[in-house]
Amino acid sequence: MNSTRFDTTCIGNAIVDVFSKIEDEFLETENLVKNSMNLIDENRAIDLYAKMGSAIEVSGGSAGNTAAGVASLGGKSNYIGKVRNDQLGDIFAHDIQAAGVNFETQKSTAGPATARSFILITPDAHRTMNTYLGACVELGPDDIDEEAISQSAVTYMEGYLWDPEGGKAAFRKAAKIAHEAKQRVSLTLSDSFCVDRFRDEFADFIVDGVDILFANEDELKSLYQTDNFSSAISAIRDKVEIACITRGEKGSVILTQDSEVEIAADLSVDVIDTTGAGDLYAAGFLYGFTNGLSLAQSGAIASLAAGEVISHVGARPATSLKTLVSDKLNLK
Amino acid sequence: MNSTRFDTTCIGNAIVDVFSKIEDEFLETENLVKNSMNLIDENRAIDLYAKMGSAIEVSGGSAGNTAAGVASLGGKSNYIGKVRNDQLGDIFAHDIQAAGVNFETQKSTAGPATARSFILITPDAHRTMNTYLGACVELGPDDIDEEAISQSAVTYMEGYLWDPEGGKAAFRKAAKIAHEAKQRVSLTLSDSFCVDRFRDEFADFIVDGVDILFANEDELKSLYQTDNFSSAISAIRDKVEIACITRGEKGSVILTQDSEVEIAADLSVDVIDTTGAGDLYAAGFLYGFTNGLSLAQSGAIASLAAGEVISHVGARPATSLKTLVSDKLNLK
Repeated sequence: MNSTRFDTTCIGNAIVDVFSKIEDEFLETENLVKNSMNLIDENRAIDLYAKMGSAIEVSGGSAGNTAAGVASLGGKSNYIGKVRNDQLGDIFAHDIQAAGVNFETQKSTAGPATARSFILITPDAHRTMNTYLGACVELGPDDIDEEAISQSAVTYMEGYLWDPEGGKAAFRKAAKIAHEAKQRVSLTLSDSFCVDRFRDEFADFIVDGVDILFANEDELKSLYQTDNFSSAISAIRDKVEIACITRGEKGSVILTQDSEVEIAADLSVDVIDTTGAGDLYAAGFLYGFTNGLSLAQSGAIASLAAGEVISHVGARPATSLKTLVSDKLNLK
Repeated sequence: MNSTRFDTTCIGNAIVDVFSKIEDEFLETENLVKNSMNLIDENRAIDLYAKMGSAIEVSGGSAGNTAAGVASLGGKSNYIGKVRNDQLGDIFAHDIQAAGVNFETQKSTAGPATARSFILITPDAHRTMNTYLGACVELGPDDIDEEAISQSAVTYMEGYLWDPEGGKAAFRKAAKIAHEAKQRVSLTLSDSFCVDRFRDEFADFIVDGVDILFANEDELKSLYQTDNFSSAISAIRDKVEIACITRGEKGSVILTQDSEVEIAADLSVDVIDTTGAGDLYAAGFLYGFTNGLSLAQSGAIASLAAGEVISHVGARPATSLKTLVSDKLNLK
């Protein structure tokens, strides 16, 4: 067990998800690539919402989901992200705090509304995201709480945070503080299109400043522009302390310089909505890792947490992950 | 088939539901009676929300759910209810229109925010509602569209609408217009506590102006202040054209002067959240009735629609009820 104030501080775009079920034809008509995350402006947000069916609103945001997951596992969780002082901002703040996460980022009082992501679920349970960043563009280095970061065993950031300019600066500042305090920095590549947008910057940042990397197979291949999974694995292996590479139903692999642990996916799950699978995988691993568990144990928690979140609509746990772990895993 | 513009116009409090799972102890601590609907003021809304866990937001409102149900069945559905021009109001308007319902009520531009109901789901799947009426108090007679009402085969109103003063006046105006146009008026008693608040007014209004009454067993007993179901049945029977009395898993009974049809509940359903059961029962019956089906057929649709809505969180259909009816019922 670590004795820091927080197991993890997660930093990301603070978003309320707007979930709606659609048919595949809708993606075609709207020129959307299944499973992608598309950034949209306000006009497109209005247009797309008008075309969508009835929806439900659930707090989300990739790193926010991870923060909620760490808390649900019983970990000490902190979150930094920007909402506005509007109704959706109040919903976001309520939900993340009610999940047991420390959340103290000042809400913006002017400028764009709280961010929302229109998440379209096709009958195969896959999600295609359309994100209006709204107030997220207001996040900046001033929002980084130096004391909280230096007292977090891991500071975890989503690649999506590089889209708003201030987010990237906040990200770099947080990484610097974490390393100066001899803590770890973790990054998720978020999305292969996001990797496309920032490939060189991500590659440099990984070498300089990332201890624990999360990526799925496509994102890793995109990062190193290879079609070959083994080549991508070899490329990342000597650049970070730990790389967790997820492969959907093929499970995941956790790599260090001298070890490789294969983790099975939970195939017993009735998959309803894949949103949040990667976020909760990261939550499970980071909870285990920061609480002194082995890579295999941390990976098993990661797999269980990801399995829970894809069994329902919404990207945050719908049940206590702590109870789930104690019921399903033998970590002694 | 009727040739009116709308099968039903539903009038009610326009509300966004905020669902959260709780343990029974929470109800005790907060002095809440399970299954009740409690009206709360803004301060209590803030206090209760702060105590609640993470939630999800779904458009609701009793008559709004019924309107969405009629549309999902393929019926011509109209809705009248008041939201503000705020984010939750936009969500409500989007969802009911996306469900295929005609919704033209002007949003208020000042005064209280859009209404929300904090709906607490206990592990037994029962719901306890805490409603902040917000902008609903702005609904008044001016919002009643005379042409739409006179072209609706049934104008259906929720008892809850009597809580805001303007709602009651709107309600009476709509009933008068409907009857002058030789259309039917329908009322749901909504909630036994609501009946407590308005017993004498409801009793008078039923005699004067209700053709089709919906009530559950408790509400009907409360109306006539009797513990005896048969007495309550006898009391209502000669006062309305049709009375649909729901009895939870005991099913329902549909009464006219000279007939009585027993409808079985769908006991095969895995009950997740009972919110909206009565609303969708009404939707199913009204759709069938206004489309020339028999009482037994209309009741079967009512039972199927109620069964669908209690199989998931949220009080509106999560699938096409039209498809469900065509798959499950033989109405030829």
